[in-house]
Amino acid sequence: MAASAPGPVRVGFIGLGIMGRPMARNILRAGFPLVVQSRSLGPVKKLVVAGARAAGDPAEVAATSDVVIVMVPDTADVEAVLDGPRGLLAGARAGLIVVDMGTHDPSALVALAERCAEVGADLLDAPVSGGEVGAREATLSIMVGGSEAALERARPVLAAMGSRIIHIGGTGAGMVAKACNQLVVGSTIQAVAEALALARAAGVDAARVRDALLGGFAASRVLEVHGLRMLERDFTPGGRVAIHEKDARIILETARHAGVDLPGFRPVADAFRRLMDRGGGDLDHSALITLLEPDPPLD
Amino acid sequence: MAASAPGPVRVGFIGLGIMGRPMARNILRAGFPLVVQSRSLGPVKKLVVAGARAAGDPAEVAATSDVVIVMVPDTADVEAVLDGPRGLLAGARAGLIVVDMGTHDPSALVALAERCAEVGADLLDAPVSGGEVGAREATLSIMVGGSEAALERARPVLAAMGSRIIHIGGTGAGMVAKACNQLVVGSTIQAVAEALALARAAGVDAARVRDALLGGFAASRVLEVHGLRMLERDFTPGGRVAIHEKDARIILETARHAGVDLPGFRPVADAFRRLMDRGGGDLDHSALITLLEPDPPLD
Repeated sequence: MAASAPGPVRVGFIGLGIMGRPMARNILRAGFPLVVQSRSLGPVKKLVVAGARAAGDPAEVAATSDVVIVMVPDTADVEAVLDGPRGLLAGARAGLIVVDMGTHDPSALVALAERCAEVGADLLDAPVSGGEVGAREATLSIMVGGSEAALERARPVLAAMGSRIIHIGGTGAGMVAKACNQLVVGSTIQAVAEALALARAAGVDAARVRDALLGGFAASRVLEVHGLRMLERDFTPGGRVAIHEKDARIILETARHAGVDLPGFRPVADAFRRLMDRGGGDLDHSALITLLEPDPPLD
Repeated sequence: MAASAPGPVRVGFIGLGIMGRPMARNILRAGFPLVVQSRSLGPVKKLVVAGARAAGDPAEVAATSDVVIVMVPDTADVEAVLDGPRGLLAGARAGLIVVDMGTHDPSALVALAERCAEVGADLLDAPVSGGEVGAREATLSIMVGGSEAALERARPVLAAMGSRIIHIGGTGAGMVAKACNQLVVGSTIQAVAEALALARAAGVDAARVRDALLGGFAASRVLEVHGLRMLERDFTPGGRVAIHEKDARIILETARHAGVDLPGFRPVADAFRRLMDRGGGDLDHSALITLLEPDPPLD
């Protein structure tokens, strides 16, 4: 079979956005032959200068790769990349591994994995946390759903982009883990925002409160990092509100599917929506605190 | 003035409950002369065996102490201990320092501090975090509101009970900080509960999800400690639901006073109330997860 051919793993990369560009560069840096495809031509040209080859469409990427990374924004985008007329599946053969690294609806992944299986290809869901900095520094955390065997074959490629690769379970399990991650991060940002806004409104030094809370059970990465951003009014992203708002919709949809109520997260999802509506989509998600203040000042 | 008399600081302790007993013992252990008073006589007798003296009422404690620690459950209890017919104020003199170490309504503290000032006494609010284990091991975090001068005089006594003493601000500021602490802890427990319940309902291994989340921005003390309790179904307290439910009412009242909305914490307060109503008051607060499961099993 083609996938067991000797020589280095040939990698394809589709979607050269803010996250995709540095991830693709790290794959080149690790010495893999790389073919790229993206809607905007600027990033494609830069990768070609750096040593990659450009493909005209996903079908061509599939035909010349062993492992294809897909890093596109929405669930509908992944569906188009895989299942469109010149999509990955049109060029796929047995043994191809497709890795979806964006944050998408777990149930859509299950359907796409079945379509891949029909042509003998494997689909892994492997969403990441760590943001743009983690993408640049190849220190992303990667949560993987799909078969253990496919993960082992794709692992060298994933290891070029991340420092922590965790196999969560079968198809969609990586997306579920990422949804859980975004749920906890969003709710904790809201909790820290409410605590610091309450301290300030009660006439108490919010910085001292944060300091006191870091010593006990209220301690969290969010209290450290996002709590500091709130005190310093620095809402440069970091994690953008627009992304977290999209993730919030996936979280609520996943919960609806699973039959779980999320009474604590629902108002957090509402808050992201309201901040979007006020034009805060490009701010860091710690800007949730501005909704709790008398006259929300947006940058 | 009496307070500047030479010799060791004479300490009074009122309220020998689950937290008060080990705290009082640590004061004795540190070598302070101690007079105690409590509603139940059993704990008083044990402290007397350990070297304390028993007083008949708070007025008598005040008359023979330089610093009096008050560790009683509700705001109404503190008011009774200070302002009742044989309360602390009836026996107080200039220079006395009263330290309220329970978790109470910040605005009530301001009123009590004024009553203390009328007789030349100082009131510090100094609520703690760290629970029964912290009380036993003298590792409590102590959040202090009130005058810097009074804190400096009381500091050696507080240092016998806690390892971290943080001056937050004026009267009531310690209580505000504790309210913020309980807000963040409660909301984070709810967030972790929702994430683990979602993972499980979606057919994913919740333990692996917790493991993955500990490596990123979702990391917190609550995810470590309470997340593990949820996975192991071990709801032995720890922090009791009944206590957190009482604290939730203080948080909401403090927010109402300060004019801050807490959209994220409100459903968490509701959840504590519902768990109480189902007879879960004596469970650890991580038992919030049982409300998210199809058929809540209570121990």
